[in-house]
Amino acid sequence: MLMLFVILVKRLQDIGERNAIQNIKKILTKGKDINRIGDDCAAIPIGKHYLLVTTDMIFQRTHIYPDMTPYQMGWFLIAINLSDIAAKGGEPLGVVSYLGLPRITSESFLKQLTKGADACAVHFGTTIIGGDIKETKEITLCGTAVGIVKKDEFMSRIGGNPNDIVAVTGFLGKAGAGFYLMKTRKGKQYSKDFFEPFPRMNEGRLLAQQRTVTSSMDLSDGLSASLYQLQELNNVGFEIKKGALPLAPSLRLLPTILSSVDPYFLALHFGGDYELLVTISPQKFQNTKKALQKRGVLLTAIGRVTGKKGVFLIDEGQKKVLENKGYEHFKPHQF
Amino acid sequence: MLMLFVILVKRLQDIGERNAIQNIKKILTKGKDINRIGDDCAAIPIGKHYLLVTTDMIFQRTHIYPDMTPYQMGWFLIAINLSDIAAKGGEPLGVVSYLGLPRITSESFLKQLTKGADACAVHFGTTIIGGDIKETKEITLCGTAVGIVKKDEFMSRIGGNPNDIVAVTGFLGKAGAGFYLMKTRKGKQYSKDFFEPFPRMNEGRLLAQQRTVTSSMDLSDGLSASLYQLQELNNVGFEIKKGALPLAPSLRLLPTILSSVDPYFLALHFGGDYELLVTISPQKFQNTKKALQKRGVLLTAIGRVTGKKGVFLIDEGQKKVLENKGYEHFKPHQF
Repeated sequence: MLMLFVILVKRLQDIGERNAIQNIKKILTKGKDINRIGDDCAAIPIGKHYLLVTTDMIFQRTHIYPDMTPYQMGWFLIAINLSDIAAKGGEPLGVVSYLGLPRITSESFLKQLTKGADACAVHFGTTIIGGDIKETKEITLCGTAVGIVKKDEFMSRIGGNPNDIVAVTGFLGKAGAGFYLMKTRKGKQYSKDFFEPFPRMNEGRLLAQQRTVTSSMDLSDGLSASLYQLQELNNVGFEIKKGALPLAPSLRLLPTILSSVDPYFLALHFGGDYELLVTISPQKFQNTKKALQKRGVLLTAIGRVTGKKGVFLIDEGQKKVLENKGYEHFKPHQF
Repeated sequence: MLMLFVILVKRLQDIGERNAIQNIKKILTKGKDINRIGDDCAAIPIGKHYLLVTTDMIFQRTHIYPDMTPYQMGWFLIAINLSDIAAKGGEPLGVVSYLGLPRITSESFLKQLTKGADACAVHFGTTIIGGDIKETKEITLCGTAVGIVKKDEFMSRIGGNPNDIVAVTGFLGKAGAGFYLMKTRKGKQYSKDFFEPFPRMNEGRLLAQQRTVTSSMDLSDGLSASLYQLQELNNVGFEIKKGALPLAPSLRLLPTILSSVDPYFLALHFGGDYELLVTISPQKFQNTKKALQKRGVLLTAIGRVTGKKGVFLIDEGQKKVLENKGYEHFKPHQF
């Protein structure tokens, strides 16, 4: 008689990124610090401040598009790390970059990459303070940004309450529009909106200074994915008004050039905008909005927090589920 | 007439890691902080302290041996980052880990990896305070350690003076012995010395408190490679006494099991010991050594700094060049 032993091995592709992170959280020893795994930054209490630390990586296969220049790779690496500092209301203290590059990489590629990284750091008021370079099979760039924020100005991902206003800085869909427009004859100049994102350092600081934000994160993964993440962390739901979304001007241009792409789909799901998504109590929203307006920063209410889980889109009075079409690692891709 | 245009492109494999780093240094904007690219850590001045930040990565192809367990990978990732904090005399504040894993990675692999990382952090008095997990082609683990040190206790790589004593903590060649012994029938238990290195946190703090160290780095790349790095940074030379090297007990065992491997070669070149290599003025060396001895820490003088470039080994009165047989990335490998 033949006996078959089937060993069931759970793999990351079965459980997905969020479950994997839950596994990690259960195992890790808690320090005296607040454990912020799952937030944009780790936060180390130092007197009246939190020291913010965040690490983000980009890989050739998943982040680097064939049209991206080495300068843009450098810019992008620093921008995505600074964006996490911005989302917590922090000021940057410095960035460390670790470059993994193949042996055949040209010297001029390295120089351009460094120039892009330096330009982004300097543009946002900081510098690259350390790093290393190592040989790898595929381009693997790792950045670590360090920042600082007063404890009472720190904007966590955790804290949104039912009836809070949901708001975003700036415009949505700019990166998505850039991605599609750069492929067209007339739209090449929009590639920067996708390849050279701006971390919202100034916006983050202004919001933090108001001390009215109940939860905050950056829109790196797109609006829908971000709302689903906040929903999990805060055990709340969201109602988003389609008509209130501040569409990027370039997104309004898109249908005339490329009619097959839905601008609202990009604004809701595409990601790469690096705007800040925040919740603010309804009593404090108008004053916060005005304070930012005075400094030239647009803050737009796009919906509200609800007491029950579920993310909905309200479109001309009709309420329907807003699906999570963002990107979760390990799980089969939805795009 | 046929014209041939030959474009000469310099690649990283032609210029090597150190020249590549020089290129980067020339481009980067200097902040108000001291720029420590090339040192073990970036150092951000905060009042009377430096905040230390270091990032190090391990890759499947270059760092992960087939016999290494997931637990050991986690331990190793945290240990190599903490070692850079130790080499600057710092106390750890926390570690952020960023795990790049293939989709087919099993859940139990992730759990073991996390347990190893957590165990190492906790063993050395700190915790993992943040991180993320992403899908990659090959295992790519990135750690960032943050630490703090008083400005007047900071131990830089820069500062060794001619006639200073060159000294090391602990024993040399332990990792090398572990690497060879684990391949033998009798020596499996020594694999830990290679796979689970101990960052010298306590040793680093004790040395820093003496305020006598003129330069310091960890021995991750082996003694010869480290001496060549200090030579470049400080424009000095070194004379090392072969007879003075504190050989690891397991290294002395090696010839009886595996006669083909030269113990001194491993102590001089193999790396992976993560002991600290320091220079101290001759007037202050004995007191420093005694202070460490009282706390059970071995500090051994192995040679002296010279005024002229050149790294030499003195063996039974004979002086010969000690070649750099350590590892430089991008250049054809010397092993």
